[in-house]
Amino acid sequence: MAVPQIRIGSVATKLPGPPVDNARLGTFFRASGVFEQWVDTFIGTRTRHLSMDLDTGEVRFCLADLAEEAGRKAMKAAGLAPGDIDLVIMSTSMPDTLLPTTVNVVADRLGIDGVASYQLQSGCTGAMQAMDIAHQMLLTGRHRTALVIGGEMCAKHIDLDLDFGKLSPGELVNTVLFGDGAGAAVLTAEAMPGTAVLHRVLVQCVGHGKAPGQIVEWFGMGDREKKRSALYEDFKAIEENVPLLSAEALKELLDGQGWRAFDVAWLLPPQLSARMTDRIVSHLALPQAQEISCVAETGNTANALPFFQLERALPRMKAGDRAVAVAVESSKWIKSGFALEMA
Amino acid sequence: MAVPQIRIGSVATKLPGPPVDNARLGTFFRASGVFEQWVDTFIGTRTRHLSMDLDTGEVRFCLADLAEEAGRKAMKAAGLAPGDIDLVIMSTSMPDTLLPTTVNVVADRLGIDGVASYQLQSGCTGAMQAMDIAHQMLLTGRHRTALVIGGEMCAKHIDLDLDFGKLSPGELVNTVLFGDGAGAAVLTAEAMPGTAVLHRVLVQCVGHGKAPGQIVEWFGMGDREKKRSALYEDFKAIEENVPLLSAEALKELLDGQGWRAFDVAWLLPPQLSARMTDRIVSHLALPQAQEISCVAETGNTANALPFFQLERALPRMKAGDRAVAVAVESSKWIKSGFALEMA
Repeated sequence: MAVPQIRIGSVATKLPGPPVDNARLGTFFRASGVFEQWVDTFIGTRTRHLSMDLDTGEVRFCLADLAEEAGRKAMKAAGLAPGDIDLVIMSTSMPDTLLPTTVNVVADRLGIDGVASYQLQSGCTGAMQAMDIAHQMLLTGRHRTALVIGGEMCAKHIDLDLDFGKLSPGELVNTVLFGDGAGAAVLTAEAMPGTAVLHRVLVQCVGHGKAPGQIVEWFGMGDREKKRSALYEDFKAIEENVPLLSAEALKELLDGQGWRAFDVAWLLPPQLSARMTDRIVSHLALPQAQEISCVAETGNTANALPFFQLERALPRMKAGDRAVAVAVESSKWIKSGFALEMA
Repeated sequence: MAVPQIRIGSVATKLPGPPVDNARLGTFFRASGVFEQWVDTFIGTRTRHLSMDLDTGEVRFCLADLAEEAGRKAMKAAGLAPGDIDLVIMSTSMPDTLLPTTVNVVADRLGIDGVASYQLQSGCTGAMQAMDIAHQMLLTGRHRTALVIGGEMCAKHIDLDLDFGKLSPGELVNTVLFGDGAGAAVLTAEAMPGTAVLHRVLVQCVGHGKAPGQIVEWFGMGDREKKRSALYEDFKAIEENVPLLSAEALKELLDGQGWRAFDVAWLLPPQLSARMTDRIVSHLALPQAQEISCVAETGNTANALPFFQLERALPRMKAGDRAVAVAVESSKWIKSGFALEMA
């Protein structure tokens, strides 16, 4: 029996509300006048979209809201009804609740029932993780068509009582790097003309012996103190390791496909921040590849991000065009990516 | 090419500290004198193991500690070195942190590196979810040997400031139902004599149009108020639905294998509480099956629980013996199970 080809039948995304620029963020944080210049120079992210309305403090979207909308649009774009989906896999670092999982709330709202559904706890490589599992489960033949979703909604971690004027640059970074959003894709073993073939997904944790580059905590009923921040990042380790891990992931994907660097027409690089993406891309020697990035406009939406890149890339890919996506998670150092070809 | 047989190469578990009986729990909660009788009559759970030392309030084990120990013992029992594991899948409802994921902390500690690793957010069906994904990913042939882990550590939700004397029975239930622990299994596509064949894993979310039966919340830096409980359960809905969903899962597993009820020698039923398990088993008409339950001693360890049952069942199974396990998650109503046969 021939191995079936798995295709990306559709991609869709959802952003909450209007873009929030650095000037608005600076006012909100009561930051000093150099805030905007500092963000521009060191981060490069111009806007992001947030589920919390900064004017009122109202949280207008939960993660399930964003994921539902992205999932609904992806199903519609692929011409599928809820009953056509026989597998749902979602990834996020910020689920609405620990239980029920957001994936099952979303499945309920989309009318998908009686199928296997999974939610991955993950950071910047989550979309690749979800696509990898869907890809493998479609390859066994038990499933035919999967809805894969990734999203983030970080309002729970916006502490309105913080004195932002007293934050160190390392702490301030967290307030400007990230954005909320969700993305979804239909992956299918069915023949769908004009869609891209997902050849391979790579996910490898290489964290043995390495301290985490990112920590995100959660609190329960019992630990009320919360005197420390829930977020920690080792930006020095991130800046050192992410370009190297990106180059390794790219090499493994190319070697796995037998592709050479100049075979790649489209590059979807990691999107930690606009400045980091520039640095990473300069490490990835792909002479013919056009870069597809969105972080300067969306912020780092982590689990959602590759869907925003795919949404921009797929309509521009011509028959035979090859694309490679790379994502790196600094939490415990995961390198990941996928190789794609327009049929 | 013949479809490979996936085997359970080994199973191991880890409980934190000594058993905590209902008398000790009653003292800790400053509960009234009828507490013990109430637990005995309505819950039936006699002991559980907790990572928090109730005498000192000290948390002696994090989830990674328990999972590491279970994983290490499972690898040792299967005679495997860290380099033999090429896939790690863990499930939990209570990860130590949101990032890094506990699975990658555990992989690091076990010396497993450079392989795909995934963490599922899940409740009482989490072990089945992790086994299902491992099973499918071994079937594609990309992986040969997976370490599957499930665990819970609920100390974050033990609120020492609560006035337990004022809790309603519905709230009190949460304090006695659950226990901490972890379990692990090696699943392998390699031929291992004397091990059981994992024929099929079933996971189906059937939550469409149904309110959640269980909600577990988490809090971030921004939501300091926490005036409400983080745990909610609809025990009436659970009592109504879980026996029915258990019977459905059993029927689907038997039908899928072409097995009849009297073919099943061993039943590993859901373990919500000892009383609920009794009720469920009375709904599952398996005339020849011996029941393997542990909830009265371990409490409901959710994602860890099927590993405790497997650890008890496997050494007792003779060649040709068939076993069926069933688990139901009331969060958003997931039915699950697996069918096993001793080679």
